[in-house]
Amino acid sequence: MSTHKIAVIAGDGIGKEVVPAAIECLERIAELHPVSLEFNHFGWGSHYYAEHGRMMPRDGLEQLAEHEAIFLGAVGSPSVPDAESLWGLLIPIRREFQQYINLRPVKTLDGVKSPLASKEPIDILIVRENNEGEYSEVGGRAYRGLPHETAVQETIFTRLGVARAAHYAASLAASRKGRLTSATKSNGIIHTMPFWDEVVEETTRLYPDVTLTSELVDALAAHLVLKPWTFDVIVASNLLGDILSDLGSSVTGSIGVAPSANLNPEGDFPSLFEPVHGSAPDIAGKGLANPVGQMWSGAMMLRHLGHPEAAEHLQLAFESALREGHGTRDVGGPSSTSEFTAAVVAAI
Amino acid sequence: MSTHKIAVIAGDGIGKEVVPAAIECLERIAELHPVSLEFNHFGWGSHYYAEHGRMMPRDGLEQLAEHEAIFLGAVGSPSVPDAESLWGLLIPIRREFQQYINLRPVKTLDGVKSPLASKEPIDILIVRENNEGEYSEVGGRAYRGLPHETAVQETIFTRLGVARAAHYAASLAASRKGRLTSATKSNGIIHTMPFWDEVVEETTRLYPDVTLTSELVDALAAHLVLKPWTFDVIVASNLLGDILSDLGSSVTGSIGVAPSANLNPEGDFPSLFEPVHGSAPDIAGKGLANPVGQMWSGAMMLRHLGHPEAAEHLQLAFESALREGHGTRDVGGPSSTSEFTAAVVAAI
Ligand SMILES: CC(C)[C@H](C(=O)O)[C@@H](O)C(=O)O
Ligand SMILES: CC(C)[C@H](C(=O)O)[C@@H](O)C(=O)O
Repeated sequence: MSTHKIAVIAGDGIGKEVVPAAIECLERIAELHPVSLEFNHFGWGSHYYAEHGRMMPRDGLEQLAEHEAIFLGAVGSPSVPDAESLWGLLIPIRREFQQYINLRPVKTLDGVKSPLASKEPIDILIVRENNEGEYSEVGGRAYRGLPHETAVQETIFTRLGVARAAHYAASLAASRKGRLTSATKSNGIIHTMPFWDEVVEETTRLYPDVTLTSELVDALAAHLVLKPWTFDVIVASNLLGDILSDLGSSVTGSIGVAPSANLNPEGDFPSLFEPVHGSAPDIAGKGLANPVGQMWSGAMMLRHLGHPEAAEHLQLAFESALREGHGTRDVGGPSSTSEFTAAVVAAI
Repeated sequence: MSTHKIAVIAGDGIGKEVVPAAIECLERIAELHPVSLEFNHFGWGSHYYAEHGRMMPRDGLEQLAEHEAIFLGAVGSPSVPDAESLWGLLIPIRREFQQYINLRPVKTLDGVKSPLASKEPIDILIVRENNEGEYSEVGGRAYRGLPHETAVQETIFTRLGVARAAHYAASLAASRKGRLTSATKSNGIIHTMPFWDEVVEETTRLYPDVTLTSELVDALAAHLVLKPWTFDVIVASNLLGDILSDLGSSVTGSIGVAPSANLNPEGDFPSLFEPVHGSAPDIAGKGLANPVGQMWSGAMMLRHLGHPEAAEHLQLAFESALREGHGTRDVGGPSSTSEFTAAVVAAI
């Protein structure tokens, strides 16, 4: 049994509460399964920035590269400009480690109230292209401050980039209900979207058990509210996926419990697992944080490391703690972060 | 009393049913108010395309330019490629006539069921920049079909373009609850968004009674589902506004009844009024179409032409017909298109 080396960046705000909570559960799971985890903690984030003027050391990526996975809480604080905290840590990790898939489950859980009137269960996987597209470095501003000032942003899609995202999404769909929905905007003026459509179609043809539907992103957003239970796997570009996945979580009422995985599916580089929520400085340090998003991200990490049974065990444990009414206050429950964590440990 | 010349393009599919229905109501309203309307009908759309290979004649824009407003049903049919039907009619009209505002009310109506569990009333105006941004002609593809194929799309924002959209939105907010929310994505990598933020902030400063909040579009999409009743006026770029406005309509359950105005606020060129829904070929010709989106667009047209009382009269009439249960089947009512129209005419 080989040991998985995991880099832990608790980061800022409630990251410092939910990460220890999730690690407690992961360690308990590891005792009961043929899984060996080694956690190396990195005290990076806004405090590090205050001292060193950077979010992580110059050789931060090299240090992380020696790990199989990165388990991140949240980075960001009112004292550090967003551009610094993102460009100084999260974005370089996503890009340098070719984490070209951002995977976000959107699922109704007992004990988490959806804002929708319908109680139909929802179970969607959103696959977001995580490396290219609308998030490109190319662009800038001309004639700053003058009446004819202009700002441009180049969106760049490559065949390689789109095809590998489509492959990932199609093979995921093949392992589920076989329905893949691709978010597009090719009825408009946007040159990159017909290209996206073409490559997604060509790629999906290699998966005979998968039915592909291309849906205009405006209509798709509406359908995520009107009939979210009809979706199985959704694949979308970087920006569209960013919007659709937050929207999806909101529909299940679970933004506070939603997990995400930034994956390098080949395993050439470490993948990163983090909850969708941020550092939430307003509630930090009060025992109010909901650790489910972090625990769920931990379950995704176990799955990525090749331990589906251990992952399932952890998942069932926090789902049952929620179902039994042990949730934190944001989901209408009575528990503090540590009380809820104790309930999950007990359920394990 | 001067006569307003209105160009009518019923277009395709259910456009041919809902436009006559709305015109019947507009004519009745005109009899009761100091309003004189002259409707000139243009038989453009997919049938015209089948005969002439184009969506409208070569001098179509010149013909339209002689009118104060354009009242459009829907264009689009399975027999005409989207690119043709849009680029051949709708997009040139939006751009040549400098209709730089796309205004979309998002409002709960009695008799239209929202998919949300909460019954809190919603009343939002979404102001979408309608001429520039992500929808630019600049872009294309290189290395077609090869493994290193690349597609690019240039997003272009100008100070003029952003400022005039922000002015429109801020003055609208000033006439309502004074709350303006701007959709941004400036925490990411997108160069144009910090520019958008800057120009929107500078412009809003000229409206001391308006409070501006910039919200990340992913969070904003989620909030439109979780607490839509907290918004007043939302301003967004072309693509973000496209997504948010369909999303907004879905939250009120009213995609079928949602109206839109493509405005040239200065009145140098005709503005265009059309429902949000499309030509819906599947239900066309069956008397099933809901004419409320078209009627509501007609009310927006009356307002734009300087007749707020007439607009209000029409609005109250279709709202009361809905409230009294005369809705069409899509909103759970018993009526055909013409039965519902008769109920509105009676209410007028
Ligand atoms: C048809 C399409 C180009 C259009 C848009 O994206 O502007 C439509 O979705 C709309 O919102 O009017
Ligand atoms: C922080 C930001 C750059 C990021 C994104 O847009 O990718 C976030 O919204 C996310 O979804 O992880």
